[in-house]
Amino acid sequence: MDEVIADPMGAMIAWYEKAHGLPVDLNKMNGSWLMGFPEQHQKLVRARLYEPGFFRDLPVMKDSVEVLKEMNQRYEIFIVSAATEFPNSLKDKLDWLMEHFPFFTWKQLVLCGEKRMVFGDHMIDDHVRHLQHFNGKKYLFTAAHNIGVTGYDRINSWEHAAKVFLQ
Amino acid sequence: MDEVIADPMGAMIAWYEKAHGLPVDLNKMNGSWLMGFPEQHQKLVRARLYEPGFFRDLPVMKDSVEVLKEMNQRYEIFIVSAATEFPNSLKDKLDWLMEHFPFFTWKQLVLCGEKRMVFGDHMIDDHVRHLQHFNGKKYLFTAAHNIGVTGYDRINSWEHAAKVFLQ
Repeated sequence: MDEVIADPMGAMIAWYEKAHGLPVDLNKMNGSWLMGFPEQHQKLVRARLYEPGFFRDLPVMKDSVEVLKEMNQRYEIFIVSAATEFPNSLKDKLDWLMEHFPFFTWKQLVLCGEKRMVFGDHMIDDHVRHLQHFNGKKYLFTAAHNIGVTGYDRINSWEHAAKVFLQ
Repeated sequence: MDEVIADPMGAMIAWYEKAHGLPVDLNKMNGSWLMGFPEQHQKLVRARLYEPGFFRDLPVMKDSVEVLKEMNQRYEIFIVSAATEFPNSLKDKLDWLMEHFPFFTWKQLVLCGEKRMVFGDHMIDDHVRHLQHFNGKKYLFTAAHNIGVTGYDRINSWEHAAKVFLQ
């Protein structure tokens, strides 16, 4: 969900630059986008992830609605989100998905901690830790925090995903 | 979670008999415990499942804490709950689990709709619809609504589970 169909990093940068007027460094996000924020404010930024409403109001990643709408007619899709670390995100994520992706139903959302118990034919994720145990074909969805990762097939955008899954 | 480690049916019966003074019929629960409630009140009973707090305040199933605490040291366990149908249950279920089963972490909770994307070695569930697609060994956890089901190995209690998984 996050950094794949929803954009918490973008929302956080927009809020942060407005609230604190300091630049965020995309080149320091290796492993976690939190690391791109000035060190003295990382605790503050992280605290926002626990606030009710933060995940309810996120931008939708470009082209994800259109491409997933078509993919949903050809594949059995589950949206699997590592969310239980953030208790207030759970209902927000469900409401967000139902609003922006109304062709999905609540049956297709999975809110979890680890993703080790998930199986399927394909997994698209922005984190190696979620992909590494997966039994099927793995795709790393390109994000600022995983630019340096090698050894995985990548999906760079939903336009790219359409080429892989819809042609 | 429900009817396996948490007891929403018990909580609902206690509330209903106090609020309406009518008996609930366990013999009519074939397939769904909702059917055991008098027909004129089933809509009302179902509406309670959507209320904030209902799933936060449920009794714990007998022996489940002690047995799962020991199982958690020998197995990699996930608590997988069909919950996304009830948006207000999500945080309540996480909070409930962390309170009563403090040896589990948020990494082990999975809140989903269908359970088709789950794999593992063993699954304990009170519904055939969740067990039927599972790749590993399946155990039907005995509950009023599944008494009539045949063709599955059963776990009748957590004392019984201890015999199966801890000996």
